[in-house]
This record gives sequence, structure tokens and C-alpha cells, in this order.
Amino acid sequence: MLKEAIFHEPDSNYCYPISNNEITLRLRVSKKDNFEKVSVIYGCKYDYYIKQQAILMNERCVDELYRYYEVTIKLIDVRFVYVFKLEENNKVYYFCEDGVLDKYDFSLAYFNCFQYPFINDIDTLKKIDWLKDRVFYQIFVDRFNQGDFNKEQAYINLKIDEIPKPSSFYGGDLKGIIAKLDYLNELGVNALYLTPIFKSKSNHKYDIADYYQVDNMFGSKEDLKELVDKAHKLGIRVVLDAVFNHCSSDIYQFQDVIKNGKNSKYFDWFIIHGDKVDQKKVNYEIFSICDYLPKLNSNNKEVRNFLIEIGKYYVKNFDIDGWRLDVADELSHVFWREFRLAIKEVKQDCFLVAENWHNSYPFLKGDQFDSIMNYAFTKALLDYLAFKSKDALETSYKLNDLLLRNSDIVNDMMLNLIDTHDTDRFYTSCNKDIDLLTLSLAILFMFKGIPGLYYGIEIPLEGGYDPDNRRPMNFNKINYESTYFKTLKELISLRKSNKALAFGSININVDRGMLVIERENQNEKLTLYVNNTGKALNVNFEKVILKYNYENFTLADKGFVIVSGGNK
Amino acid sequence: MLKEAIFHEPDSNYCYPISNNEITLRLRVSKKDNFEKVSVIYGCKYDYYIKQQAILMNERCVDELYRYYEVTIKLIDVRFVYVFKLEENNKVYYFCEDGVLDKYDFSLAYFNCFQYPFINDIDTLKKIDWLKDRVFYQIFVDRFNQGDFNKEQAYINLKIDEIPKPSSFYGGDLKGIIAKLDYLNELGVNALYLTPIFKSKSNHKYDIADYYQVDNMFGSKEDLKELVDKAHKLGIRVVLDAVFNHCSSDIYQFQDVIKNGKNSKYFDWFIIHGDKVDQKKVNYEIFSICDYLPKLNSNNKEVRNFLIEIGKYYVKNFDIDGWRLDVADELSHVFWREFRLAIKEVKQDCFLVAENWHNSYPFLKGDQFDSIMNYAFTKALLDYLAFKSKDALETSYKLNDLLLRNSDIVNDMMLNLIDTHDTDRFYTSCNKDIDLLTLSLAILFMFKGIPGLYYGIEIPLEGGYDPDNRRPMNFNKINYESTYFKTLKELISLRKSNKALAFGSININVDRGMLVIERENQNEKLTLYVNNTGKALNVNFEKVILKYNYENFTLADKGFVIVSGGNK
Repeated sequence: MLKEAIFHEPDSNYCYPISNNEITLRLRVSKKDNFEKVSVIYGCKYDYYIKQQAILMNERCVDELYRYYEVTIKLIDVRFVYVFKLEENNKVYYFCEDGVLDKYDFSLAYFNCFQYPFINDIDTLKKIDWLKDRVFYQIFVDRFNQGDFNKEQAYINLKIDEIPKPSSFYGGDLKGIIAKLDYLNELGVNALYLTPIFKSKSNHKYDIADYYQVDNMFGSKEDLKELVDKAHKLGIRVVLDAVFNHCSSDIYQFQDVIKNGKNSKYFDWFIIHGDKVDQKKVNYEIFSICDYLPKLNSNNKEVRNFLIEIGKYYVKNFDIDGWRLDVADELSHVFWREFRLAIKEVKQDCFLVAENWHNSYPFLKGDQFDSIMNYAFTKALLDYLAFKSKDALETSYKLNDLLLRNSDIVNDMMLNLIDTHDTDRFYTSCNKDIDLLTLSLAILFMFKGIPGLYYGIEIPLEGGYDPDNRRPMNFNKINYESTYFKTLKELISLRKSNKALAFGSININVDRGMLVIERENQNEKLTLYVNNTGKALNVNFEKVILKYNYENFTLADKGFVIVSGGNK
Repeated sequence: MLKEAIFHEPDSNYCYPISNNEITLRLRVSKKDNFEKVSVIYGCKYDYYIKQQAILMNERCVDELYRYYEVTIKLIDVRFVYVFKLEENNKVYYFCEDGVLDKYDFSLAYFNCFQYPFINDIDTLKKIDWLKDRVFYQIFVDRFNQGDFNKEQAYINLKIDEIPKPSSFYGGDLKGIIAKLDYLNELGVNALYLTPIFKSKSNHKYDIADYYQVDNMFGSKEDLKELVDKAHKLGIRVVLDAVFNHCSSDIYQFQDVIKNGKNSKYFDWFIIHGDKVDQKKVNYEIFSICDYLPKLNSNNKEVRNFLIEIGKYYVKNFDIDGWRLDVADELSHVFWREFRLAIKEVKQDCFLVAENWHNSYPFLKGDQFDSIMNYAFTKALLDYLAFKSKDALETSYKLNDLLLRNSDIVNDMMLNLIDTHDTDRFYTSCNKDIDLLTLSLAILFMFKGIPGLYYGIEIPLEGGYDPDNRRPMNFNKINYESTYFKTLKELISLRKSNKALAFGSININVDRGMLVIERENQNEKLTLYVNNTGKALNVNFEKVILKYNYENFTLADKGFVIVSGGNK
């Protein structure tokens, strides 16, 4: 046994309650080990020394180096303690807090067994039920659609089909989104994420000068109310963008600090190195390299309360369904914990999805976010389809890795993406290869979590890095009869109607070079086969539900098939 | 390179800030690997793709399987991102969120580098300064000393030198402790931890019926005030026991639920399976197997506030210096986070030390406890000295493991113990071998963290499992002239006076079969050598500060020496 490889951690993504009397355990071992039996020997903390139960673990998946086992245990007594028992070549190993042992003394278990000593409901992350059949659609508001032609329009300087510059304004607004709700409903998406809409000078509005005003360019609070109400009538949820890490230097509080230095009552709202703001030296913490975006100090209770009140205000008064949390990883954990408790008190199923490009596990234990924008998933698809730096097998390893980073409660709520306003368009990354783009969508819709589309994917829009990835939407360019568009619509429809895709389990592997993603619940099973091997494959698929570049038992390179059931 | 062994986790005990611009990183690799160079390649999140710095990591320690590297980095920009670079046999490896890679593309680092994206002060655990030269002394109040002879004494049924039964009462009280403050001060201990003192029927008082009353057997609130005030005048801190997981079934709120079932406004203060309490079926959650100890429901905000108010009350009104948190691992994380913020707002340096026999890392990230009662340390000493199941080398591995479980901020505040009211007396565990007991004390006082003594160690008292481990103190039995007592006093004195023991670094290894513990700060160094090999060793120690069974260059089996400086 390769002892160095074994890993488990109680009260983590390797041990988490899924209800008040059910707990999921995971165990990692070396892939080189082939245990005949891996089991959990568990019991109640207070009589474990005399009374133990055993349950077998199932192999969940493998990656490059490891094999993962998993089991969910239904408990009668939730004062849960356990050790692992591994059997290989007639040898038995026990794995506990003291590491791998040849034998285990249950009479001294209180010193070194693993434990999850009580399932407290308030510590348990809950799945948000309405997410189970969602398809998100992200709108960069200025670039989507103009609906208000009575507003002051002198600021508009970008025409449709022009390449945007950092200072471009196309004129998109909330009324424009309202006007397209029927279109979006027809497309099938049923949740919107809007980039920021509050008062700010820029086209992207990540530099907010007043959190309590909808920016004039985008409309009014009445428009926001109308948008949410009409969306809800169509069954479409609405998520807004909370930019809480930083604000515009135009904001009243920062201007007061500029004027009054240490005497300002807002001095501690920012992180200033010195007694007054020096805008030339930029002696204050900022976002990225933007001196006009001073960082808000979330160590300060007043700031935390200010931001929490904003968060509550739009949930309470506009009934929005969630917040996308901008640059969330740079704010304090204390803030996000308070924010979560406050928002969920107003609306229990309000969705909190954060921007964090990295493994966000420290924020995803149930006390802070529900999930994140899954850029690591984006990277895996880029490597497989666009950069071709990973083949199907390596991609299956990577996707399994990503699922092991968090509990399956989080995985089911992950906002998976192929591109956003902060990345190159996937279509552009794969050199405008519509087949590869289509494969990426198939994987996106079959993966565990919520598929998120970036406006313009219907055309598909192209675009490199910011601001090129924010080109105006052109509804006239949608080719409703194209295989591409039809496939996109069918994937959306399948995601919403098939119960195996609604929080169903996932199994990722490889078959004859194809990436295979199986999704399953009690009654249904769907399997996706993706061919990106560089050559056509001769395969006979039965019960085909959706296909792309598959004819006459031949799955073309850059083709996929989704079948009911699977190859088992 | 054994890739399976490598481990690192950002925002954890492997990556934690120690100030607003310093961060400590740890890395684990296989002990089989011998890297020539291990370094951190780091930078600012926003220009890492073009600008990186490198810093070498130092080997911190080894254990059975792994080698651990560590470095503390002083940052200019705290938006910190990094990868590890490992060099071995002319091969270079990079370790990042995507695992071990042969080369690293810094232009795509935003997808897969490690990060600690901003040091928010409020998330950073702070060391409590007054702990740096503390020696704790735990008092089981009923068994220590009676000072009040005017109180109702009919309940007293245990005489000095008798073996206690579960229902025994010896008569110890707060006045009795006050009477012995000068004795304790002379002994040298400078912090007291008292087992519970609030209204309750038992001798141990872990079954509290009223948190706002000092139990009559023990005295009054005036006595408590006098005890804390007089202790403080002697420089002695006082920590009380917070029993918040459960209470006595006598408590007003539980009695109300018994009477009124679901109609009681306290129904949700407990976790009851059904509409009313059934004491025969015990249809409610309890502590251990004790039906008279209903569990308090810390998922309920009212309960949390009730307990937090108690916590604040004794800090505010009696100026106590800390709370020992009973069965803390069975309460919710949400509760402990709220409790911590509330208590620290009243008294920033109030010490929160929890009972948790297991790896308590999920509670020790800075948001909940300061530290725990270190029973895993107890177990390591039992294995080495009493059970003899681990030799010096294995013990060095185990002690290193324990230090790697948490940040060094936590390690410096750990309450290390050889025994308590919940274990056999160490003296009894090692068959009343005074030499082995003395060795355990030497290790206790030289280990990183705070030494905690259990009353009676001065005699030393003997005793097996509860209630035998709670025998009455007999001050007449202290042999002030014995080598044992003198050694104990010298260890206490050394711990308080030597700066290397006050938050100094630690290095644990083995020399000629001896367990070696080195402690060091900028100016001072102390080294402990323990011989438990079963045979005397011929060693020439210089600069000996304290010795036990060492004469004529011979360190007897069951002997130790502490020297200034070390063998380097």
C-alpha cells in the first residue's frame, strides 16, 4: 500500500452532512493500490469502543494519481465517529487520525478515530431547489439591447457590429432586456445574470458611485421592478452583480476622505497607508491596477453593515433571486458569513454565486457562498477542445478533480461556464470552429452543476480579450435554422426536462478515446460521448437522444452523441 | 518524485497570515524525495504573469512518511499568488492548483496558481500575549480545598485520602481556592482553570440548572469576584468552564418543555423527536448516555443568544480571563463564530480553549476557538512513556504531526496536558513510576504551547478513571524537599523565565535514542534531551540548566537534561 497517498479530512469536502441524519464520506488512495474492500467502521461516539458497524465504500472515480471512494451513511445516532478499513492481498489496514495502522484498538478510539461529532442543521449547506433545472444567461447590459429611446442618448458611441473600445457605449438598458424576455423564454434560458446596473460612469459599471441608484443609462428602479416581475411571470430568475470589494473613487464616502483625511468618519472605510489620500502615489488599497477603484475595508463593521444593507435592499424590494459576488475572494470571510446569514434570512433560497477563479473551497463550506463561477471548468474545456493540450483521458481526470474539490451539494450549484465578459469568447479561443464550440456546449450541459451561457452565444458572437468579448448583440444574425442553433436549443431543453441532469450523480470516464459523461438519478440515465480524437470512430449508439456529426454508425471527429441509458 | 505525497492547501494551516503583510506557507512532500531546492515563486495577483519573485523554503521537520518545508514571506503587495518550484536531480517540477507540472505557464496563472488573495485583518487569528509565559493549573473545585465552614455542610460525605464515588462530595469551594492562592503563587502557576461552578446538583457541576448562579456548595458571586480580583493581584489569570452543549434537565426551560410540550416557547431550545418529552424513551438529544443532560439546540438563534449573554456576563462583571468550552465539538460552527466575536468585543484577549479530543482544525482557523485541550499530545506521551508503544523516533514523528495539524499561532496557544479530570492520572498510567512522570513533565514544559497541570500533580496524586481521578487534594502530602517536587518547581520557573519557551520555534528530533526538543527565539536556545531507551547513556552535556538522573556524564534511563543552546 502506498501510504503517502491516502487522504481524508473530517468536517470538509471529504466528510459532510447532506441532511440531519445522513453524511457523505470520501477517501483518497493511490491509483496503484487495488483494495479488495474499502469500508467505514463507524458508530456512536459514546459506545464506539464496544459497538461498531461496517459499510462498504464505492469507487467513485480515478484521476492521474489517485482513486476515490465514497459512501453516504444514514445514521441513527448522529454523534458520528469512524475509521477506515482497507483490505489488500490478505492484509488489513486501518486509517485514523494517527495515520495508517496495522491494527486498531477501539478501546482507545476516543483519542484518534475520525469524527463528525454532531450534525448541526445550521452548519449544513442546503441545495437551492430552483437551481435544479436552470440554464443561466449572462447579459452585459450595455451591449445587449436598447429599449428606451426617450433617454438622454448623447453618450452612445458604438454601433452594432462595431468592435468596442474601453470607452464605448452601445446603449443597452433594462427596458431592452424586458423587450427580449419573450425571446429569452423561447430560447429556453430561465435565469438571467446581469453585470452591474448601479450608478457608475463606465459601460461595465464595476465602478459604482451609488449602490442605491440604477444608472440612468440603464433605466430606473421602476424598470428593474418591471424586469424582475415580468421575468418571474415567465419563470425566469434574476441575479444581479454585487461589486463589494471596491467602489468608484467618486463615491461620497471616498470623496469625504479625500477632503477630510483622518478626520473623515469614513477614513476607516478604506485601507489608506498614511493620514490622507494621495491619489498620485495611490497610497490606498485598490482593485487590480485601477487607482479609481479604492478597495472597501470589509474588516470594518460599518462597511460590512453598509454592504449587507444593500444586499438585503434589492432582495427585499425587488425580489431578485441571487447575487453574483464580484472579486469575492478579496473580501473577508467574516463579511461573507454575515452577508450570507442576513440575505438568507430575507430569502432562504437566494443564490449566492461568487467570482473566484481559483479553488474556492475555503468559501464553500456552507457558511459563505453557495457556489462560484467555475472558471476551472472553463480551463479544462479550453485544454481539451481549444488548446488540445489534454486528451479525453486527461480531461476526464481533470473534471473528476474539479468535482472532488467540493461537496456534491456545491457541485450541483456550481455555475459552469465556457466564457464570460472576463475571458476570450470560447468560439474565438477555438479559432471559430463551430464544431468545437458545439462540443463545449454538450459538455457544459451534461456536467454536474448549472450551465451558464454568455449573451451572443446564439450567433455565436466572437471576441478576444476585454473589451472585444463585449461586442453588441445582433439578433438579426441568429440563424434559427442552423444545426448549431438547433443543437443549442435542444441542449437547453434537455437540461431542463431530464431529471438525471437535475442534481443527478455523475460519472466521467473514457471509451475508445471518447470522453464519456454519465448522469443518473433513480429512474433515468443519460450518457454523453464526445469525439475529439482527430479521427472518426465507428460506433453503434442505441437510444440516441441528441447527436451532432453522427451518421451511419460513424461519429465524426468533433462530434457527440447523447443516449438514454449508457454503455453498461 | 513521489507525486502522490505532495500536499498544500491555500487559506489553511498550510497557508496563513501572521500579520497584515506576512504569510506563512508550508509544503509537504514524500520523505523519500531529496530536493536540492524547494522554493515559492510568488507575486501580485494582477501582474504575476510578468513579474515573479522567488524565496527558498526551509525544511521544518520530517515524520514517518513526509518531509515538511516552511517559509514566512514579507509582502509588499498582499494580493498574493504563488506556485512551488521543486528541483531534484536536474529536474524541475512546479506544483500548483493543477497538481505537479513539468513546466509552468505564468501567462495562464490566473487559472491555476495558488492564492491568498488579500490579507483581511479580521480573518487573522491573533496570539494572546499574556499566554506567552503561562503555566495553567486545573482545579476540580469540590476536591481542592474547603474554605467556607459556615456554609450548610450536610452534603459533604468524602474525607481526605478516601477514594471518591460518583456521588461523593468533599466540600471544596471558592473560598478554599482563595485561601490557597498564595500557595499556588509560590508553586509558580499563573493561570487557573476551574471546572464548572454554577448551580447544579452534582460534584462536578457539568449538569447546570442555572448559569447565573454560583452553586451554594462552592460559594457566591462575591466569592468569585474576590477570587478573580485576588488572583489578578498575584498575576494569576482565571478561566471558567462553559458547559454549553447541554444543561441539567432541571433547568427552567427544559422543565417548561416537559410541562407544555410543543406549546412551550422553549420547545425548540432542545432537539426533541416528537411533540413532547418522553423521559422514559429519551426521545431528545442528550450528552453521552445521560438522560438528565438534554442537549441545547445551538441551531436556534435564541439559544445562541442566551449562551452568548452568559459568556459575556462573566467576562464583563467578573473580569474572567477565558472560557474553557465543554464538549465544544458538538455545538454548531455558527454558534462558536458568533460567540467568539461577541466575547472578543468585550475583552480582546479573553482565551477561548475548547474541549475536543480530536484534530480540531475545523474550529481553529481563527473564527472559533483560540486552541483546545491537547489530548493528542497526552496520547503521544502515554505511548512513549507509559505504554511504551512508541520509541523516541516514532514519538518525534508524532509530535511533529501534531504541530502540523494547526498553524503555529494555534500551536503557541495549545493547552498541553498530561492528564485531566477526564483521563487516568498520568502517574497511575505509568504505574506510579515517578521518573516517567517527571519525564512527561519535562516534555510538557518544553513543548510548544502552554503547559497545563492538574491539581494534585505536586504530591503526586494517583487515580484511575473517573471518579478515581478526582481524589481530594492533600496539601500535607507534598514533599517540598523531594527531587520530584523541586524539579516540577524548576520546570515551572524555567517556562516562565526563558524567552525561548515563550512562543519560540520548536525542533523535535532524535539523538542516540534520546528524544530531543529544541526551542529557540532570536536570542536564546534551550534543548531538552530525554532518555527512555531502557539503558543509561554516556553523554557529555555542557551548559546544563536542569537535570534529572544525570551524573558523571551518564544520563540514566528515565533521565533528562535541559541545556542552554544545543548540540549544533
